[in-house]
Amino acid sequence: MPVNRCHASYHRKFSPVSSPNWDTVAIVGVGLIGGSLGLALRERNLARRVVGVGRRASSLTAALAVGAVDAATTDLAEGVAEASAVVVCTPVSRIAEDVVRAAAAAPPGTLITDAGSVKQSVVEGVAGLAQQQTPPLPELRFVGSHPLAGSEKSGPQYATADLYVGRMVLITPEESTDPAVTAEATALWEAVGANVQTMSPAEHDLVLAATSHLPHALASVLAAGIPGPWWAYSAGGLRDTTRIAAGDPELWRQILLANREALLGRLQQFESDLADFRAALAAGDGDRLLQLLALGKEQRDALGN
Amino acid sequence: MPVNRCHASYHRKFSPVSSPNWDTVAIVGVGLIGGSLGLALRERNLARRVVGVGRRASSLTAALAVGAVDAATTDLAEGVAEASAVVVCTPVSRIAEDVVRAAAAAPPGTLITDAGSVKQSVVEGVAGLAQQQTPPLPELRFVGSHPLAGSEKSGPQYATADLYVGRMVLITPEESTDPAVTAEATALWEAVGANVQTMSPAEHDLVLAATSHLPHALASVLAAGIPGPWWAYSAGGLRDTTRIAAGDPELWRQILLANREALLGRLQQFESDLADFRAALAAGDGDRLLQLLALGKEQRDALGN
Repeated sequence: MPVNRCHASYHRKFSPVSSPNWDTVAIVGVGLIGGSLGLALRERNLARRVVGVGRRASSLTAALAVGAVDAATTDLAEGVAEASAVVVCTPVSRIAEDVVRAAAAAPPGTLITDAGSVKQSVVEGVAGLAQQQTPPLPELRFVGSHPLAGSEKSGPQYATADLYVGRMVLITPEESTDPAVTAEATALWEAVGANVQTMSPAEHDLVLAATSHLPHALASVLAAGIPGPWWAYSAGGLRDTTRIAAGDPELWRQILLANREALLGRLQQFESDLADFRAALAAGDGDRLLQLLALGKEQRDALGN
Repeated sequence: MPVNRCHASYHRKFSPVSSPNWDTVAIVGVGLIGGSLGLALRERNLARRVVGVGRRASSLTAALAVGAVDAATTDLAEGVAEASAVVVCTPVSRIAEDVVRAAAAAPPGTLITDAGSVKQSVVEGVAGLAQQQTPPLPELRFVGSHPLAGSEKSGPQYATADLYVGRMVLITPEESTDPAVTAEATALWEAVGANVQTMSPAEHDLVLAATSHLPHALASVLAAGIPGPWWAYSAGGLRDTTRIAAGDPELWRQILLANREALLGRLQQFESDLADFRAALAAGDGDRLLQLLALGKEQRDALGN
């Protein structure tokens, strides 16, 4: 990639060595998440070569057009054949299979991670499929990742090189995961600007049920329930509260089903809290209502805008 | 107000006549809503004089400092004494009283409107208090208004002259309201850039229960229920979905209680819809879940970003 003046400061800041940190990075699934990773790797000169793997030629063409990848293929085995790192950014229901296919086709020692919004089902799926492989897989250097950086948009046309800057990426090693694999995945996400934290896959899914999957369910149910003509009378509150309901229904079906138990727990808690709120309203209990509203504000204020 | 070059285009565009449309406009309550109205009236040269009325000297000082009013007083009767139009922008629980006090002190023929987020209780409150006045009120030229332009912020320091540009203002005449009063209120809001629609107070409250009051309740309950340390693992979805929970709890207590019946109806509907969603999730019914998510997306997509 040609280095121009705009990028010079990036290189000084993030790439003190003159050669790229990685040789070939393969990105399986070049939508918003995968495309943004490719853009970041290329703009920061972090990889000698970024190869995009996709199922649809149209996505690959778009990823090439926006400069997210150097090369593209619909053949996963071919795409990862020379990879030193593979990042699987496909929809949740396909991740485990794509990880294991990549592991079977990549050179020994290749780091493999993903970008899925759920982790327990992914790591279990990978372990299960890996055991069934014939011939047996060589060493599997996989750890799960989840960049908290999605949006209601999807597709490589929305990809940006700075999507991960200042964002959190959760990496979810199991007890059996080689710490060197976790360290490599951490280095990859940190190199594109993210802050990395590690937690177990199960803890990840409990937390995200509360902070992402429940909000999505509420936004969707709220949006679905408002009579069509009344949307004309909405202001910023409804706009914000329902924005994520515009997310891809198929992707979200997979995420919510994959984290069903944890999400059901949070839904039950929410329904109980909402019943309390409704009871205070029905009783005209202004003190209780104020208390509940103040608690919501206190928690939200701590997050900032 | 001195006219400078920055404002010249405004004047050409919105004030084809060289004299202001109104003489003295009194704004009772100079927070975000009242302060923004004052700024808009002054920047567009729509009023010869804008007088701010407030209970706290600090708010009035701030409103003067940002240029939202020409003069300020804590004495409502004094503030409206020369008003040709009065806009009551106080919290919902005070509106009816402030409207009637303004009507008692303003010159005959003065237009009075408000900016409250509920309308049935306001117009009923105004009618009830007006009947109790001794001496009897002269003609009461009041109609309710609701600009759909709030935010989670409050205070004159957040006021902007363009808050109402392109926003909708709902004006809620009763059957007994003089159409000339509705026309004057319409002209006032249109002059500051708003799109006006009229509906009955009861219809307003039904619609807003769905598009504003229910979303607020959900955002607040959601925000209150997320364990504090987990907010560190939030992304844009939670941020958007809970933003309005940062609104002033006291203002929202008043709004929600004032629209209790309509809001309880929407809450019941929402709880039923959410139970359907949860049942589909619990049953692992991916088809139904996809259907519900797609309906939410379809409705939200129609609104745009």
